[in-house]
Amino acid sequence: MPQVFSMQAIAHIQSGFPSKFGVPRQSGLVDALEATLIFEPEFRNDSALRGLEGFSHLWLVWVFHQAVRPTWSPTVRPPRLGGNRRVGVFATRSPFRPNPIALSAVRLAGIEHTVQWGTVLKIRGADLVDGTPVLDIKPYLPYADCIPGALGGFAAVPAEEALEVVIPPGLWERVPPAHREALRGVLAQDPRPHYQNDPQRIYGFFFAGLEVRFTVENGVLTVRDIANAPPDRNRA
Amino acid sequence: MPQVFSMQAIAHIQSGFPSKFGVPRQSGLVDALEATLIFEPEFRNDSALRGLEGFSHLWLVWVFHQAVRPTWSPTVRPPRLGGNRRVGVFATRSPFRPNPIALSAVRLAGIEHTVQWGTVLKIRGADLVDGTPVLDIKPYLPYADCIPGALGGFAAVPAEEALEVVIPPGLWERVPPAHREALRGVLAQDPRPHYQNDPQRIYGFFFAGLEVRFTVENGVLTVRDIANAPPDRNRA
Repeated sequence: MPQVFSMQAIAHIQSGFPSKFGVPRQSGLVDALEATLIFEPEFRNDSALRGLEGFSHLWLVWVFHQAVRPTWSPTVRPPRLGGNRRVGVFATRSPFRPNPIALSAVRLAGIEHTVQWGTVLKIRGADLVDGTPVLDIKPYLPYADCIPGALGGFAAVPAEEALEVVIPPGLWERVPPAHREALRGVLAQDPRPHYQNDPQRIYGFFFAGLEVRFTVENGVLTVRDIANAPPDRNRA
Repeated sequence: MPQVFSMQAIAHIQSGFPSKFGVPRQSGLVDALEATLIFEPEFRNDSALRGLEGFSHLWLVWVFHQAVRPTWSPTVRPPRLGGNRRVGVFATRSPFRPNPIALSAVRLAGIEHTVQWGTVLKIRGADLVDGTPVLDIKPYLPYADCIPGALGGFAAVPAEEALEVVIPPGLWERVPPAHREALRGVLAQDPRPHYQNDPQRIYGFFFAGLEVRFTVENGVLTVRDIANAPPDRNRA
């Protein structure tokens, strides 16, 4: 008799990424990346947030809503191993697990009162697609959640895939100043799908209302174009 | 239109605690406390665990199955504040949240092949009741999950509630040696319900097939009796 539990989204994320392309692989890699957590109307209750301001970081428990597959995958090929080696799904943070639940530690940058959505949370360092459903928010407790000596297997250290980023000034001007630091961080993290490595290919993704196109060669990412994204590409 | 997601237990916990009484408040507080994670038959697949042995710690995403209430509680009174101050539920790790999802970082002590249950995980430092349903297992990634400088609000440091533990030798003999260190750790963590503080009262809980009764006065816990628990009290 399988035990089944029904979970309801209590909030969703508003972020600059309409799809997973370009999203950093884990939370915290690009602190400049800002997102907003908007509670669903049923869960807009300011007293539920009382005391949250004392915590600098939060756990978000969310749903891989774009990774819906009819079944789970016992093994996957994580990007960290070049996309060629299969490991067990439970040894990874891959979306293709039996229950599409994800976990991200994000920085709480602010608690803001808005007219349209009630009280929202401003978060930093989020690896989240626009529209991501959130099941729970928990305070990050350093004494229970931080295990600095933990052995991280094949993912022991952050991937050394930080690219050098070259952006022609003419293109950089097209990026609203508020998004520049975040965009630079996202590019340094190598937004290419898995470990593709074709110096001739022009890659692209959408972020913060822009379409960004680039090439990568010898560890250097060069931006080739930045344009306003078509309106239908701005939201997930 | 609320978004609802159906989650299925992929495993359950086998532990020495038939109920939440006596369970340490967070994972990691008592490393000697051992538990076993047993996969549900549908999810017994050794290839899904390939590579897990490289990680020293895991995240368990589980369900507060004993904390079922018809609705959630926007504010709660955490034990850390003496049980008298109300804070928002999202500023705590209380069970009484909209979705009864919990998070624990545990130490992976072993991956064991059994005849009865296939491959099981031996874990340490678990704050888990026997029978707890598990929704997901993730590797603990120090570079993403450990934030040593995080500010922990009112829960910034572990509670200084470690009690001095006094166990008469005659009673200590009744504890199987394999469980002694764990029991001592559990007692030091103060198993009394919330911040009860009646020196006259004899408290009790069940652990590892034993019924343990004790009193607490002036920071000293004295064990008053240890007996074999009635058979119906051994399982959740």
